[in-house]
Amino acid sequence: MICYNRRMEKKTSLEDIVSLCKRRGFIYQGSEVYGGLAGTWDYGPLGVELKRRIMQAWWKFFVESRDDMYGVDAAIIMNPKTWVASGHVATFADPLVEDLVTKKRYRADHLLKDAGENADGLKPEDLNKLIKEKNIKSPDGNALSEVRMFNMMFSTNVGPIASDESVAYLRPETAQGIFTNYRNVVDSLYPSLPFGIAQQGKAFRNEISPRDFVFRSREFEQMEIEYFVHPEKWQEPFEALLADIYEFLELMGLPKDKVHELEVTDADRAHYSKRTIDIEFDYPIGREELMGLAYRTDFDLKNIQRESGKNMEYVVKGTSEKFVPHVIEPSFGVERLVMAVLCSSYREDEVNGDKRVVLGLPENLAPYRFAVAPLLKNKPELVAKAREVYEVLREKYSNVAWDDNGNIGKRYRRQDEIGTPHCIVVDFTTLKDGTVTVRDRDTTEQTRVQLSEL
Amino acid sequence: MICYNRRMEKKTSLEDIVSLCKRRGFIYQGSEVYGGLAGTWDYGPLGVELKRRIMQAWWKFFVESRDDMYGVDAAIIMNPKTWVASGHVATFADPLVEDLVTKKRYRADHLLKDAGENADGLKPEDLNKLIKEKNIKSPDGNALSEVRMFNMMFSTNVGPIASDESVAYLRPETAQGIFTNYRNVVDSLYPSLPFGIAQQGKAFRNEISPRDFVFRSREFEQMEIEYFVHPEKWQEPFEALLADIYEFLELMGLPKDKVHELEVTDADRAHYSKRTIDIEFDYPIGREELMGLAYRTDFDLKNIQRESGKNMEYVVKGTSEKFVPHVIEPSFGVERLVMAVLCSSYREDEVNGDKRVVLGLPENLAPYRFAVAPLLKNKPELVAKAREVYEVLREKYSNVAWDDNGNIGKRYRRQDEIGTPHCIVVDFTTLKDGTVTVRDRDTTEQTRVQLSEL
Repeated sequence: MICYNRRMEKKTSLEDIVSLCKRRGFIYQGSEVYGGLAGTWDYGPLGVELKRRIMQAWWKFFVESRDDMYGVDAAIIMNPKTWVASGHVATFADPLVEDLVTKKRYRADHLLKDAGENADGLKPEDLNKLIKEKNIKSPDGNALSEVRMFNMMFSTNVGPIASDESVAYLRPETAQGIFTNYRNVVDSLYPSLPFGIAQQGKAFRNEISPRDFVFRSREFEQMEIEYFVHPEKWQEPFEALLADIYEFLELMGLPKDKVHELEVTDADRAHYSKRTIDIEFDYPIGREELMGLAYRTDFDLKNIQRESGKNMEYVVKGTSEKFVPHVIEPSFGVERLVMAVLCSSYREDEVNGDKRVVLGLPENLAPYRFAVAPLLKNKPELVAKAREVYEVLREKYSNVAWDDNGNIGKRYRRQDEIGTPHCIVVDFTTLKDGTVTVRDRDTTEQTRVQLSEL
Repeated sequence: MICYNRRMEKKTSLEDIVSLCKRRGFIYQGSEVYGGLAGTWDYGPLGVELKRRIMQAWWKFFVESRDDMYGVDAAIIMNPKTWVASGHVATFADPLVEDLVTKKRYRADHLLKDAGENADGLKPEDLNKLIKEKNIKSPDGNALSEVRMFNMMFSTNVGPIASDESVAYLRPETAQGIFTNYRNVVDSLYPSLPFGIAQQGKAFRNEISPRDFVFRSREFEQMEIEYFVHPEKWQEPFEALLADIYEFLELMGLPKDKVHELEVTDADRAHYSKRTIDIEFDYPIGREELMGLAYRTDFDLKNIQRESGKNMEYVVKGTSEKFVPHVIEPSFGVERLVMAVLCSSYREDEVNGDKRVVLGLPENLAPYRFAVAPLLKNKPELVAKAREVYEVLREKYSNVAWDDNGNIGKRYRRQDEIGTPHCIVVDFTTLKDGTVTVRDRDTTEQTRVQLSEL
């Protein structure tokens, strides 16, 4: 039986994705059983598999398959001097306004954006001006306070005494855990320049108003590289890393026409950066930043050198030439990538007049590559044969699902929704001639294949 | 050339391990460049590879290769009701005493232990009594305050207002992130009983006196499973999980004579647990807990049910039988496993009269499986051939090192110290007959092998 799909023209909404994620066990609201905790999300069984595959693919592509990359895994709670040196204590803040009646607090730039204004990169005084000019009110319709800056780092106290001296922060980015280990890595391994240090791990930002599903959350996972280069030789590695990024995004199955390159202008770039490119993606919430590539000069290592008094110079092997290396930083947010993969995979179409939801995940990212089932679950000979097929496939691929729940049509719908590329059904013909039905997720076509060819 | 080793009888000390870890890039003091942050540790390039292998082996063994296990990955910052329900807010505390002169604070049980007393499981009043009886002083020789209990959870404030209402905690264990998602997983996937939910991730405890390298740190990684069973059928899965644990520890290469099973007595067990086994390991600091297996009854799910008002019952498929499942919990600490693997692999011996340090890591855990080098780095034909060998091996194994630094003896010592099982050297004979020297880490034996046989 061959089915013909008709691509429906309905635009995928964020609600479609959120609903699928909850229904099928990809992503749940954090602490949902207790009414949630705003800005936190928990990965369910399917989401864990998807996220692990994305993170492992990244590690393999950027670290394992290269000679010039070294991994680190630094603690989340770091010495607070880290964040003084990096500038986060002084300037890592969002503009906050308060509803003068309810006392609820909001991000000034978000309220302006919701009112159709562009508030990107505006200073507090300019935000104040614009709020007054446009007569912006709180969501409850009340007047707003002046804008004040709110530091986004979560703070805690380390040790048995809670005081100013024991304050520490949850890292707001993984990058500084790389910079603070630059000296250690050079001392232990003395890699040749250029080389990169990579890290995957959690980061935390106390967002005033987390929103847009996992896109802007308070706890998230990053994958960052600091690539150390000769101060005068940054252009070539910058271009090479940009090309690598595109190759990696292709591995993630992101459609090229939804990926956009934004050359960040002088005015919008951080003062220390000589060149920054944002890679943006067409999410259901609009075109937003997916990842960034920034040439950060020697800004971070020089800050550490000043704050710590330790020498950050690199001595070129076999020479007496030394300098503080410059740095190129490709920075990925795992959740933004997960969301891009989910949004670009999601579609609704019709099969034989019935609506179906399909997650067209690339084969390398699908939580399950195959689902195996007997045609009927009350026929022991079919079940036994299907188990046999299942066990053989699991030997080869770890991600094989056993799915004998409900009738065959329901199973196909379920596997379509979680993105399983191939459904294998063992029927009475299997017992006779050793062929099984292999049903393709995308075309819904079913073909009979010899077991030995699977 | 065949070398004979003589196993030296020096006992491995914790300092040996700490020193090797720093020297070779396994584990550094956290925030070392800023003078450190007590109780935090950063993994360097070699340590990341070792840790990743251990964690991936666990996931493969306990989750991927089984039909009855489901993964989750919950947020570290959870709704604080989680820790009210679990009992952590009320009772997750350590006994603290203060030096009455310096005002420094210490763990009462640690001071007693250092003085040769056994203070395990003692209540504050008993600790007080013992401190007085034995006339225990602070490390600076001063009198101590009465014991008071100090809650070990790190707290922070979520959202733009710092108040009692916005307090949240960094999770002190991953287990509760599993329990809070039990309902979600059952609703999305409806797995058949018995089934397990597994999680790997960071946990945080504000230890008063972190010590013993990564054994007792403030930030660490856990690998936990909650295995949900019929209330009357817990013995069999308990035994099965215990057998699995031993099989897994064998995969980790831990020598059987250093692994001990401790049946925790009624008096020492948590009140809700009907049976608990601690697996202990002979560390250089003594015999200490490596992991635990606890039958926790329905304690946690019933707590959640009471606190959240949500129904935690499981309905047995195809029946109307329902109950709150009971739970068996295998709980691993990654750092304790990393430390056990390092300590049991470390040895010092003599080769041709020279002392050498060897990390006898099992092949599946070694950061590098092979190291490849030309005999001489100034002979382009050797270098070219060695690169060729290197590239071919990397296609097959991702973890192959290129090591042409220093003379061949130095390279062997370095690879021995980081646990590389096989060193491959390309020499002039290679160019003639296509054989390379393969040198074995443990025996130091060198054999010539055809390239095609590698």
